[in-house]
Amino acid sequence: MATAAILGTAGYTGQETLGRVLAHPELELVALGSDSLAGEPASALDPRLNGSLKPFLSNAEAAVCGADVLFLCLENAQAAAFEAPADTVVVDLSGVHRLTDPAQAEAWYGLAPGAWSYGLPELYPATGSLIANPGCYATAALLALGPLAGHIESAFVDGKSGVSGAGKTLKASSHAGFVLENVSPYAVGSHRHAPEIAQQLGRKVAFAPHLLPVRRGLIATCFVHTDADARSLLTEAYAESTVVRVLPEGVAPELTRVQNTDSAEIGVFADRATGATIVICALDNLGKGAAGQAVQNANLALGLAETAGLRLSGVLV
Amino acid sequence: MATAAILGTAGYTGQETLGRVLAHPELELVALGSDSLAGEPASALDPRLNGSLKPFLSNAEAAVCGADVLFLCLENAQAAAFEAPADTVVVDLSGVHRLTDPAQAEAWYGLAPGAWSYGLPELYPATGSLIANPGCYATAALLALGPLAGHIESAFVDGKSGVSGAGKTLKASSHAGFVLENVSPYAVGSHRHAPEIAQQLGRKVAFAPHLLPVRRGLIATCFVHTDADARSLLTEAYAESTVVRVLPEGVAPELTRVQNTDSAEIGVFADRATGATIVICALDNLGKGAAGQAVQNANLALGLAETAGLRLSGVLV
Amino acid sequence: MATAAILGTAGYTGQETLGRVLAHPELELVALGSDSLAGEPASALDPRLNGSLKPFLSNAEAAVCGADVLFLCLENAQAAAFEAPADTVVVDLSGVHRLTDPAQAEAWYGLAPGAWSYGLPELYPATGSLIANPGCYATAALLALGPLAGHIESAFVDGKSGVSGAGKTLKASSHAGFVLENVSPYAVGSHRHAPEIAQQLGRKVAFAPHLLPVRRGLIATCFVHTDADARSLLTEAYAESTVVRVLPEGVAPELTRVQNTDSAEIGVFADRATGATIVICALDNLGKGAAGQAVQNANLALGLAETAGLRLSGVLV
Amino acid sequence: MATAAILGTAGYTGQETLGRVLAHPELELVALGSDSLAGEPASALDPRLNGSLKPFLSNAEAAVCGADVLFLCLENAQAAAFEAPADTVVVDLSGVHRLTDPAQAEAWYGLAPGAWSYGLPELYPATGSLIANPGCYATAALLALGPLAGHIESAFVDGKSGVSGAGKTLKASSHAGFVLENVSPYAVGSHRHAPEIAQQLGRKVAFAPHLLPVRRGLIATCFVHTDADARSLLTEAYAESTVVRVLPEGVAPELTRVQNTDSAEIGVFADRATGATIVICALDNLGKGAAGQAVQNANLALGLAETAGLRLSGVLV
Repeated sequence: MATAAILGTAGYTGQETLGRVLAHPELELVALGSDSLAGEPASALDPRLNGSLKPFLSNAEAAVCGADVLFLCLENAQAAAFEAPADTVVVDLSGVHRLTDPAQAEAWYGLAPGAWSYGLPELYPATGSLIANPGCYATAALLALGPLAGHIESAFVDGKSGVSGAGKTLKASSHAGFVLENVSPYAVGSHRHAPEIAQQLGRKVAFAPHLLPVRRGLIATCFVHTDADARSLLTEAYAESTVVRVLPEGVAPELTRVQNTDSAEIGVFADRATGATIVICALDNLGKGAAGQAVQNANLALGLAETAGLRLSGVLV
Repeated sequence: MATAAILGTAGYTGQETLGRVLAHPELELVALGSDSLAGEPASALDPRLNGSLKPFLSNAEAAVCGADVLFLCLENAQAAAFEAPADTVVVDLSGVHRLTDPAQAEAWYGLAPGAWSYGLPELYPATGSLIANPGCYATAALLALGPLAGHIESAFVDGKSGVSGAGKTLKASSHAGFVLENVSPYAVGSHRHAPEIAQQLGRKVAFAPHLLPVRRGLIATCFVHTDADARSLLTEAYAESTVVRVLPEGVAPELTRVQNTDSAEIGVFADRATGATIVICALDNLGKGAAGQAVQNANLALGLAETAGLRLSGVLV
Repeated sequence: MATAAILGTAGYTGQETLGRVLAHPELELVALGSDSLAGEPASALDPRLNGSLKPFLSNAEAAVCGADVLFLCLENAQAAAFEAPADTVVVDLSGVHRLTDPAQAEAWYGLAPGAWSYGLPELYPATGSLIANPGCYATAALLALGPLAGHIESAFVDGKSGVSGAGKTLKASSHAGFVLENVSPYAVGSHRHAPEIAQQLGRKVAFAPHLLPVRRGLIATCFVHTDADARSLLTEAYAESTVVRVLPEGVAPELTRVQNTDSAEIGVFADRATGATIVICALDNLGKGAAGQAVQNANLALGLAETAGLRLSGVLV
Repeated sequence: MATAAILGTAGYTGQETLGRVLAHPELELVALGSDSLAGEPASALDPRLNGSLKPFLSNAEAAVCGADVLFLCLENAQAAAFEAPADTVVVDLSGVHRLTDPAQAEAWYGLAPGAWSYGLPELYPATGSLIANPGCYATAALLALGPLAGHIESAFVDGKSGVSGAGKTLKASSHAGFVLENVSPYAVGSHRHAPEIAQQLGRKVAFAPHLLPVRRGLIATCFVHTDADARSLLTEAYAESTVVRVLPEGVAPELTRVQNTDSAEIGVFADRATGATIVICALDNLGKGAAGQAVQNANLALGLAETAGLRLSGVLV
């Protein structure tokens, strides 16, 4: 049994990580950190959280609780200022430690990169104990395109995300009066996950994200010119995976099959007119796109079974 | 005052055309056709339709009512079998008369092309009285890419449509239990609007459509490599239009601003990493993507003011 | 031609009032007030608002512009502090001037009632030039129950509202991550519209409101014991109205038929088991429930045609 | 280990029951019945169902597979015609075996009642091996009102359900173009769950159901006059339950906290103006309202732990 603590528990990724840690057979939750809820009982976050959990600590207190693994579910600025305790696995769900090139880290996050390792287990397993958990769009795009790297001429990624991807912070673009019945492109051509995809893929991609009127879930539709057999490469890459599923020919991913799970689905298509390859990956932005992958990364770093505590079967309806 | 009749009034495009004809200052509705509602009062379709409207005729009866313009809001097979009366403007909202190349018409619709003219008023105004009204995705992609034709190296179109785009017919993919909280790619790389776009644009495009959990509205996100100044070409193309609006730099289209209207919005972006151009067009699939454009086409053919009867201002919220 | 100004234009009710005033054949807009947008061009609110509109004034400036009618679309506290200029029709869309009993006004709004008159044109037309525009739930419940007043033993009102009813202000309960796929009862048994309904109806009602995952629209389901013929009373009450529609037997109201309109629909049912009467009223919370009714009130106060500028026909789909 | 089979697996309740049986630690799935999928592999229903499951049988074949428990997830007419094998626990999720009074059974289902026992474990545990699983609305209303029975003067129930409550069959009222952004009252005062509630409660209730634009989940808002202390009675009734949660004062149930679970939440409120009691129960129509309760009933009949295989913790976000 390893011990775990969560910092920034009150946000979406914090809550989701909490749910997984509570259900994890080999992780014991020893501290819940939240600056907004410090001193409050766990039930202040959700009435389903019962009295067996200890009250919230401040994030600073939770950071030094001595847990084997810390999950950082903090805003970028807070994560950037975080000092990792020695001999502790830290999985950072924020964006600030993902870009390893100094110029890129400076340009997109105003930071120098630290000693963190990008961790997308199926393709780019982390090394070391300081793990930068990938972005949700980046995870989907990389699962779709990573196995084709080296065979791609140009790549265009259209991202579509549910509103929880934008976090729990109140902003005009998350107001339900704005979101319902709307589709809203944002940060078109200038989103932070584009350099992250490029870093891992080894080539630049054009990227246009869109906000959708769904709670959770994300689809990346990737258009590429390639002379490789994309279906073979993808099938082979995930042959052993219980997390990523390559769908049979003619079957497209659907958000509802991955929602509330830590799985991802990939569909592969040839465009009839142009011969372009279209690879579509669906996942839950809070599952494989955040908390699920964070737990998967922690499992690997702690030497536990890779998928312990993950949600790999979903609701069938 | 010209006279108008609608065939297939009970479907989505029929109802929408009806709403516009009723509000049109220069069209008088003389017959409502519907095989499923023949003999029923107009209120059988909607309790808001009052007694001043005559009961439904069969489509065959409505076709020979002598109206100056017939709006065909029929299924493809019915539209293919329709014989146009002489000296009548006919606007066909189905897909069957859009492809003019015999091989393409045969491949996608199993038909020989007839003497119909494709009519997208801003870019490709129809000639003659038999008008093929464009598809909803095709309208959006062509409004985005048409002014760039001749300057495009390759084009990838990601389409996102509300559920009314799939029509009122009951099918599993239109069941609300399937649609809600879902995003569903379909006909990826093999949708009928791809050859329609290619025909008008003069070059092939890769196309992936997606069904969204919204009632109405459609966004086409178009990725292109071009050496032209896309913003200038688009701004110039629609400088005189009161239907199509090119948005200022940095502003993206939003579905809610075009829903329930016959307008379209276009946003133009440069991808920071790759330099690719991303042009995004939003419209209402039942407005500029169907009934609104049909009325616009009819206005031109009848010599009326081009935008008479159109919904060009929307709800502000 | 009368002149009009709007204070608090940037909120939902302000925007909606603006849309109606712009389309009104007998109102000329002379000032747009907004403290957050003062000095900005009209297009800062919405890119569809073009250059013919003057820039925003502060609310204080707009209040003294000399318009014949002022629409107050302000927060409660701002509306309470507002001093009406002489010889001006003022329609207050906030709640603060609705309760006329001093004890009630104090209990629910912390205020003394002023010289304002409640204005629900079909049932309780305002007198004088200071008009308190009814609440959205209250409008629906009163349209359903007002004509039965004096025949009701006890009344229970279940309210269901779209999210725009809660305003544009950012709060946790309006975050799309909270609203989507949720139904959220709130202020159960303690909502401010209950005393407003009771005041006009002359008897207390139990009231439970719920927030729904829709943008706009509201349904009030009213359960009553009555020995009167509810259908006859309601039909008679609205026989001359072009705003309120009593539906035929067996037909229930639907949100989509009243959304984006200023109409209301009423369905009347007998409960098979208990003989109770169930009256259901649907309207758009921003239309008949706010801006539409405000314009209707203004029309009456200014001696214009009662429904001038109202949206009485909706989208048919 | 007991054995189980499902008839009518392809519908919503069938799929949901399947998900729970697959995750159940003490049930072994031995047959999947579906007339529409007979002969097909399990993956024909959902690509997540892998090869370890046997192909679908016809319902007739599955019925005689010798399983210890049969879950009937059939249409009413099929369930009415079903002949239960001897020595088998049968849980019928249809409506046909719920009403025990011959006149009521005839009036609402056109049937004579058989030897079935109504099974709502917390309040009315079934006796015998033929179990009629309660309706979704009835479960919510009974959980809210059952503990108050004998203390109620009159009761009004407003039901609000997600679209999966109406089943997977294609109908106009389940088309997403009808459901999205709509709220649709239906069978007002004449729904089949009203006599079911009355039967168990021992008194008639007025009932108005509404269809909401959510996938799953149901809220029953119950207005009653009672002189009892409703909160005490409810708290006591569910003190030992891990399925039903009475919320603290001032806290209202929310759909998102019970979706995808087999739990129910109850909020209790006093109406400030009238003193009426408002009890609100939320549950997942496919969980506690159908498949979850069916498994709970089966567990009790088979002598297993009551909540084995149930989903009692949900997603926290």
